[in-house]
Amino acid sequence: MRGKFISFEGPEGGGKSTHVAALAEALRAEGKSVLVTREPGGTRLAELIRGLVREELEDPPVTRAEVLLFLASRAQVVANVIKPALARGEWVLCDRFSDSTFAYQGYGRGIDVQLLRELNEFATEGLVPDLTILLDVPLEVSRARLAERQRATAAAADRIESAGEAFHKRLREGFLALAKAEPDRFVVIDSSGDRDDVDRQIIEAVHGR
Amino acid sequence: MRGKFISFEGPEGGGKSTHVAALAEALRAEGKSVLVTREPGGTRLAELIRGLVREELEDPPVTRAEVLLFLASRAQVVANVIKPALARGEWVLCDRFSDSTFAYQGYGRGIDVQLLRELNEFATEGLVPDLTILLDVPLEVSRARLAERQRATAAAADRIESAGEAFHKRLREGFLALAKAEPDRFVVIDSSGDRDDVDRQIIEAVHGR
Repeated sequence: MRGKFISFEGPEGGGKSTHVAALAEALRAEGKSVLVTREPGGTRLAELIRGLVREELEDPPVTRAEVLLFLASRAQVVANVIKPALARGEWVLCDRFSDSTFAYQGYGRGIDVQLLRELNEFATEGLVPDLTILLDVPLEVSRARLAERQRATAAAADRIESAGEAFHKRLREGFLALAKAEPDRFVVIDSSGDRDDVDRQIIEAVHGR
Repeated sequence: MRGKFISFEGPEGGGKSTHVAALAEALRAEGKSVLVTREPGGTRLAELIRGLVREELEDPPVTRAEVLLFLASRAQVVANVIKPALARGEWVLCDRFSDSTFAYQGYGRGIDVQLLRELNEFATEGLVPDLTILLDVPLEVSRARLAERQRATAAAADRIESAGEAFHKRLREGFLALAKAEPDRFVVIDSSGDRDDVDRQIIEAVHGR
């Protein structure tokens, strides 16, 4: 039997990696075979690509190059990690997948979302998660975390804070719009509350399918 | 006035880099400002991507990832090198461009060429060369060069040679089909002959436009 594919999505600071790990543990306790991976990354090539996107280059990727690098990484992880694991009947939990491209580069950076869907379909060979858990974080939380980061670095606070706020607002609204458009695939969970309670909601959502 | 954009295409062994350099020299002698770049490559990021595609990884890129990496490199070179140079009125000579993707990954590796055109249009923002010079090499030349390379490495000759021959045949036919479909943009030159004569044909083709 083909395994199940669950993606975790949402803005930074929603605690995705913590909750992915908790779900993996819960599923393993039920005797299931679970593979955890992340986007971008998950294979040696994909980790190298992740490095390129993050590295402080004199020549940082333009938005279109960034999109294509993320998609290259996704194509590799889908072909060499996710599809083989699903074929073996394993559960695959992925920290970010296609919806992050639509939210960050689409809603966030203004690239046409329909165009991104077509590019992404090429990269994923049409693979769509069985369930996507959107860990939603209220804007105040993003804002507080952004301000904290700015105090930590010596960034020009005003310009970056205003750009950052507008971007984070578009990003959150983008994720929520994606969830609203596909209610059968998405479950939206407010992850600003008690961590154990969030984990319980995630496990309920998984058992509910 | 916007500069002119000329791409050089064709199988390995057609002497592209030599002929690109000769054309650049000839155009400079006429007082033109010329920028030479190559695909994939031409910016620091693009050179790093070129390294990823060429590096011997335990996890080499799957075909779709390879396509997306080449396109990411192209997006970066177009945005940061080619378009600015054309806007400054320079002549841009590029060693490989979009047609290599259609020939290698399309005709060579079997990915739908129309789909590749759509992906490529995203990467290039619709930029098409004013003139494309296809340096065509007869199959006997490719075959001889392939055999030579196999003697130099300790490759399992039979399996690779047969796969290589079929691939090189599809590749050459692909380039010729692309040229036939766009006779206004392409000039096909047999580059197996005398080098100076090939250079003369290239310069005539450029002046003919």
